Amino acid sequence: MDTMASNAKKTDPKSNAEREKVVLAYSGGLDTSIAIKWIQDKYDLDVIAVAIDVGQPPSSDDIIARAIRNGAEKAQLIEAKDEFVNEYIWPALKANAMYQNIYPLSTSIARPLIAKKLVEVAKKEGAKYVAHGCTGKGNDQVRFDVGIVSMDPDLKIIAPIREWVMTREEEIDYANKNKIEIIVKKNSIYSRDENLWGASCEAGVLEDAWTEPPKDVWVHTVDPKDAPNEPEYVEIDFEKGIPVGLNGKRMKGVELIESLYKIAGRNGVGRIDHIEDRLVGIKSRETYECPASIVLITAHRALEAMTLTKDVIEYKRGIEQKLSQLIYDGLWFGGLREPICAFVDKTQEFVTGKIRVRLHKGSCMVVGRKSPYSLYDVGLSTYGKGDSFDHNAAVGFIYCWGLPDRTAAKARKKK
Amino acid sequence: MDTMASNAKKTDPKSNAEREKVVLAYSGGLDTSIAIKWIQDKYDLDVIAVAIDVGQPPSSDDIIARAIRNGAEKAQLIEAKDEFVNEYIWPALKANAMYQNIYPLSTSIARPLIAKKLVEVAKKEGAKYVAHGCTGKGNDQVRFDVGIVSMDPDLKIIAPIREWVMTREEEIDYANKNKIEIIVKKNSIYSRDENLWGASCEAGVLEDAWTEPPKDVWVHTVDPKDAPNEPEYVEIDFEKGIPVGLNGKRMKGVELIESLYKIAGRNGVGRIDHIEDRLVGIKSRETYECPASIVLITAHRALEAMTLTKDVIEYKRGIEQKLSQLIYDGLWFGGLREPICAFVDKTQEFVTGKIRVRLHKGSCMVVGRKSPYSLYDVGLSTYGKGDSFDHNAAVGFIYCWGLPDRTAAKARKKK
Amino acid sequence: MDTMASNAKKTDPKSNAEREKVVLAYSGGLDTSIAIKWIQDKYDLDVIAVAIDVGQPPSSDDIIARAIRNGAEKAQLIEAKDEFVNEYIWPALKANAMYQNIYPLSTSIARPLIAKKLVEVAKKEGAKYVAHGCTGKGNDQVRFDVGIVSMDPDLKIIAPIREWVMTREEEIDYANKNKIEIIVKKNSIYSRDENLWGASCEAGVLEDAWTEPPKDVWVHTVDPKDAPNEPEYVEIDFEKGIPVGLNGKRMKGVELIESLYKIAGRNGVGRIDHIEDRLVGIKSRETYECPASIVLITAHRALEAMTLTKDVIEYKRGIEQKLSQLIYDGLWFGGLREPICAFVDKTQEFVTGKIRVRLHKGSCMVVGRKSPYSLYDVGLSTYGKGDSFDHNAAVGFIYCWGLPDRTAAKARKKK
Amino acid sequence: MDTMASNAKKTDPKSNAEREKVVLAYSGGLDTSIAIKWIQDKYDLDVIAVAIDVGQPPSSDDIIARAIRNGAEKAQLIEAKDEFVNEYIWPALKANAMYQNIYPLSTSIARPLIAKKLVEVAKKEGAKYVAHGCTGKGNDQVRFDVGIVSMDPDLKIIAPIREWVMTREEEIDYANKNKIEIIVKKNSIYSRDENLWGASCEAGVLEDAWTEPPKDVWVHTVDPKDAPNEPEYVEIDFEKGIPVGLNGKRMKGVELIESLYKIAGRNGVGRIDHIEDRLVGIKSRETYECPASIVLITAHRALEAMTLTKDVIEYKRGIEQKLSQLIYDGLWFGGLREPICAFVDKTQEFVTGKIRVRLHKGSCMVVGRKSPYSLYDVGLSTYGKGDSFDHNAAVGFIYCWGLPDRTAAKARKKK
Repeated sequence: MDTMASNAKKTDPKSNAEREKVVLAYSGGLDTSIAIKWIQDKYDLDVIAVAIDVGQPPSSDDIIARAIRNGAEKAQLIEAKDEFVNEYIWPALKANAMYQNIYPLSTSIARPLIAKKLVEVAKKEGAKYVAHGCTGKGNDQVRFDVGIVSMDPDLKIIAPIREWVMTREEEIDYANKNKIEIIVKKNSIYSRDENLWGASCEAGVLEDAWTEPPKDVWVHTVDPKDAPNEPEYVEIDFEKGIPVGLNGKRMKGVELIESLYKIAGRNGVGRIDHIEDRLVGIKSRETYECPASIVLITAHRALEAMTLTKDVIEYKRGIEQKLSQLIYDGLWFGGLREPICAFVDKTQEFVTGKIRVRLHKGSCMVVGRKSPYSLYDVGLSTYGKGDSFDHNAAVGFIYCWGLPDRTAAKARKKK
Repeated sequence: MDTMASNAKKTDPKSNAEREKVVLAYSGGLDTSIAIKWIQDKYDLDVIAVAIDVGQPPSSDDIIARAIRNGAEKAQLIEAKDEFVNEYIWPALKANAMYQNIYPLSTSIARPLIAKKLVEVAKKEGAKYVAHGCTGKGNDQVRFDVGIVSMDPDLKIIAPIREWVMTREEEIDYANKNKIEIIVKKNSIYSRDENLWGASCEAGVLEDAWTEPPKDVWVHTVDPKDAPNEPEYVEIDFEKGIPVGLNGKRMKGVELIESLYKIAGRNGVGRIDHIEDRLVGIKSRETYECPASIVLITAHRALEAMTLTKDVIEYKRGIEQKLSQLIYDGLWFGGLREPICAFVDKTQEFVTGKIRVRLHKGSCMVVGRKSPYSLYDVGLSTYGKGDSFDHNAAVGFIYCWGLPDRTAAKARKKK
Repeated sequence: MDTMASNAKKTDPKSNAEREKVVLAYSGGLDTSIAIKWIQDKYDLDVIAVAIDVGQPPSSDDIIARAIRNGAEKAQLIEAKDEFVNEYIWPALKANAMYQNIYPLSTSIARPLIAKKLVEVAKKEGAKYVAHGCTGKGNDQVRFDVGIVSMDPDLKIIAPIREWVMTREEEIDYANKNKIEIIVKKNSIYSRDENLWGASCEAGVLEDAWTEPPKDVWVHTVDPKDAPNEPEYVEIDFEKGIPVGLNGKRMKGVELIESLYKIAGRNGVGRIDHIEDRLVGIKSRETYECPASIVLITAHRALEAMTLTKDVIEYKRGIEQKLSQLIYDGLWFGGLREPICAFVDKTQEFVTGKIRVRLHKGSCMVVGRKSPYSLYDVGLSTYGKGDSFDHNAAVGFIYCWGLPDRTAAKARKKK
Repeated sequence: MDTMASNAKKTDPKSNAEREKVVLAYSGGLDTSIAIKWIQDKYDLDVIAVAIDVGQPPSSDDIIARAIRNGAEKAQLIEAKDEFVNEYIWPALKANAMYQNIYPLSTSIARPLIAKKLVEVAKKEGAKYVAHGCTGKGNDQVRFDVGIVSMDPDLKIIAPIREWVMTREEEIDYANKNKIEIIVKKNSIYSRDENLWGASCEAGVLEDAWTEPPKDVWVHTVDPKDAPNEPEYVEIDFEKGIPVGLNGKRMKGVELIESLYKIAGRNGVGRIDHIEDRLVGIKSRETYECPASIVLITAHRALEAMTLTKDVIEYKRGIEQKLSQLIYDGLWFGGLREPICAFVDKTQEFVTGKIRVRLHKGSCMVVGRKSPYSLYDVGLSTYGKGDSFDHNAAVGFIYCWGLPDRTAAKARKKK
């Protein structure tokens, strides 16, 4: 359910009529809280603060009310979890999207959705500006900036954190001096992002690539050592590549992901520690906790192994890598994403069935699979009775398969 | 050390002079034991039985002596573990070779080596035939047949098991009737293959894809439940992409792999359960145990993440997939393998450093990495003091990066 | 318009009721004319001869009537030119499909259509068999066999020419002995295939790869030396990637291709001389005449260059290559074709505009292009007045673009 | 032969000792002539002007002497044609490098060589700066900037034209005011670049994409209408992928290219008209004249079609596209180029033979090819006598080839 508020005391019709508006992607955190004031001062704009719920943990206070108290003209919480799952997560899952074969793109895949909401609000409110709280050296600025201009090339973008040059301490000073209410989180040595598809953590001691991530890095998964001694099994039902049931119970996407997040998390599944290449040319050390996404991607791949022909599996892998790259690189609204998703969707027609996964102390292993469209044909593969494969065929196959190299061996030998 | 034997009682000079020779890839198992007799009868050839040691568990008897007793003209055990590691396993590791992103190609990668040894012996012995014990529906027949003709297009190939139509029971009858000494293994419900790089298992109850592999499937790794409660850490040193040290001790390849095999195995690491696409067009359910290879590939990838530029990492992934496919498809001696390995080798020049891996109850996670050629530059990536990244650059970068899609948005909007 | 005939004198109800039926892909040529009799004798089946019109030059006689006289139970000419253009040629054109970057797949792309018609007739007639006249060493047998079983895995396939072992002379003897009416074409030293999308020619003197194709090879295009001295210009209108107009006149596909075929042909455009890799492992020397397809692909590419973003152009090229390979390899009805076409279709949404091509003595050059969705923005590209490009942006772009390699240069230099 | 000069009147030891040096890529044209003075004024540096001969047409005067007269501390002409051919053109040719499948990268491939020479001179002279005359919206700035920092990350780059904001008229004013000798070329409405591998032309009337390039655009090739009526044949000998002979005469690279440039040019071969995607996100309309490169690439591809196995041809095409992209994008000295060239080199071992090409009024067609390593085996491909292909093999091949799709057809049909 969406929540809205407007700044009664500020509704000065004259000001409203005269000032241009900016839609600010607002999280309630330090950066975007002080950005409200900073943008007003620097750009003389009315600020519409928009918070988007993509499954991140709720704040300890009413951030909408606080945005208004901090000077926003309007403030709004948009509930976008269903849209996040259906329009962003499922397409990524159907492509087994993993950046650099290891990271399920949990932060990246939420960015285009947020950009889209900003553009929608800007259109509705007649705002000519949008603003976001990204720094000048990360990936998210690219995802917002490029996403926004790909949807509406006339919108102008303000990125306060990229523009001002304040350290964290200076930001707190700025807040105090300007009487901005802020909530300074614990564990603030790390920079975190969280949503339904996973959580990221960087900075602090993690910047030493040789150091094992300390315990306080992990907040969504149990330490495998402390996880239950007995494995836990889950069964996931897919229809056309999309998860529709968990342990025999039919569920909508958000519920299914939230349930699986807990189950996998309590078994220590989903921890990732990686040196990653940012789009802007930097390597950074990141940790992720992606309990639900790791299990779902593992299961989805196993179902594809059973239901897709081998040429599709092989070629789709390149497509998957490309989509992962596009998502990471902020090109969700670019020209290549829709054709790639059209390819992927077409492959999923028969990716229907049930996968059984064993979760145990950090590991996630597929141990059973079945499908009405299974291409695994025991008659063809068995070495036992009922073998239906034409054994003689292999000789002819091998003749043709090896003919180019045999011809080359002859041609190159005689010299 | 290689072992050779010849059949004294059979050295009838006349026969030797008149009969053509066949070099048989001999394992001491049921199939190739009776193949000695079967080939002699059907093709009237002298059989040279060649066993190749690629790290499989030794037989309970002297299989060379038994080959002679079973009628081979000559029999030979070729020690090929070093060559296996240096010429086949390391090139595969440098490419992080995994068929279908999951199977380290342990069986597949040994086949070209065995084919090469057969061709070498055939050349030395003046044999015009080679023989192998592959069936008519697997991958190995392709790897042998195509490998052999790619090295010597004039050699003729005999594949007794593909040619005769005997069930296991009929084979045993044949052995008894012909007084062939055989050793019938336990667990013979499964079809297994084993070497330094891993072990495979198929058939029996595994043919039901919904059934979890029973305990007796796994013989090289401890059940994760029974593995130690405390994680075990290993440190692996790489030079130019090749492992050269384990836990601070410099080791040759064979020793390093054998040591790591045990360490990873006792922590339950390396189990794989997969529905796989065979080259001949069949899907089959396979389990693998690849303790050493899984740890080494995981570590190698992590070192590459630190030492290679992102375009190399990304593009190399397609190359890795192609090499994996070539190895699986029996094209090691085909025209494409050497160019691909030349690419891979060139990327490894700076893949030097140390990786720390945490092994624990089936999971294998990289927790530390360092390299003299690290491209991870804290100065560039830090959000703290010492930031050397040019923040303004990002704005220009994003302008150009997003320009094609912004231009498209404009062009397509105005209609 | 389709033409049908049935064999009145043969309508022996008993025989009809008892004998199984085979649907034969029939061309009226020597091979398929004698196949009618041969199949009846060898397989004891009723033959339904089906000729499919895909734009090949008409025979000098009524081949349907002749099929009946030669013993077919039924004979039918199916007019399929429109379906050929809309369902096969346009999808290939949208992908600029060229095998090995040189051959527009004119023969290959007709095969799945013919296979589909055979399966449709078989279903309608209740036939359990289909037959085609392909040899055992070409590509077409694969395209028919694999296409047919991919549509109906229960159909059985008969390939008389692959099964019998007759030379051309023996075939003529067989025809004479069995009183089969045949028309032996001139120029029979070459093996030809022709349809709307182009013509192929092989065999005879062409088998010497060093010999220039003699004049009699070319029958659809004028020798460039004899073509007009003045260039001829054509303008082609595209909508969503599909040609819809020629020289300002709106046309349906078949008419447009036939018109352009003549125009390009009289200017000597469309000749191809290539050593090609057949699917079965053989290289063969082929010549093609593809006047319409070469012009349309050239024009279509130029329109894409104007209307697609660069990442789409670049990535689509790999997709195009894959689709070309699939078409050549007989996998039109396999699992990968539809996803690839879904990708391609999605890219064509804005490929609308007009291309001007100059045809002259064998060459075909795009000299003008315009589109309502042009992404060519003179404001951005001009070096003159009106430049709207942000020149400062380049500096930031280059900083990020070169950062990975600069970082590598630093890291690798200091050692 | 290299030419050097130094500014006698300026050799003021004090100044030399105190001022830092900059190495300027100098062409003798308007931009780089006034850059000498501009850099001295703005940056207070000694300018070392370096001109690099890569086969561009010589100036009408001694540009080295003029550089000195215009204030350069030193000036040097470096003869680099042999290095250009051997280290840049041949690697590109071996990869059939064409940007967007149409442009042989003639300008692009010279840039890394020039960058390398600048870095070499900078090192020798102890200069901390290099300068080039590129604008802020083209590709060349990226190729220089990224190339330079990839070779020496400590060098600082000055790009006067990108930094100043002068129109052409203001540049001429600046020259007059500062008494700089300049030679203003005719046809200056176009922006041109020329070297051994081809020439480019842009701007002026070409900016209208619908307008056919007027006659004055083309200066290196005869109008096809005016070219000889009779075709001209050339024979090119290759060894390991490299051209070594022309019409039976063995030639070094520079001579061979220069000779072929003339022959192809007089037959109107090598004209290209294209809308191209620049790296910085802009489309631009470019024309090229690449007579020698088009003929050599066409011939080289034809020889590869005869001597490489089909999997190598197919896979190499993706590699070729990637290398073309890298060259265009200024990444010659980046991490990916050497691995790709290592792949390509390995494929060329047997690309040896002779190609016969027919040049005629703008068209270039291969009409004959032969090679000692030809894989075109008439015995395998012939439909006539001497057929050595195993026809029965095809049946087995097709069985396995079509098995996945047949299995899918069965599995998906029964639902």
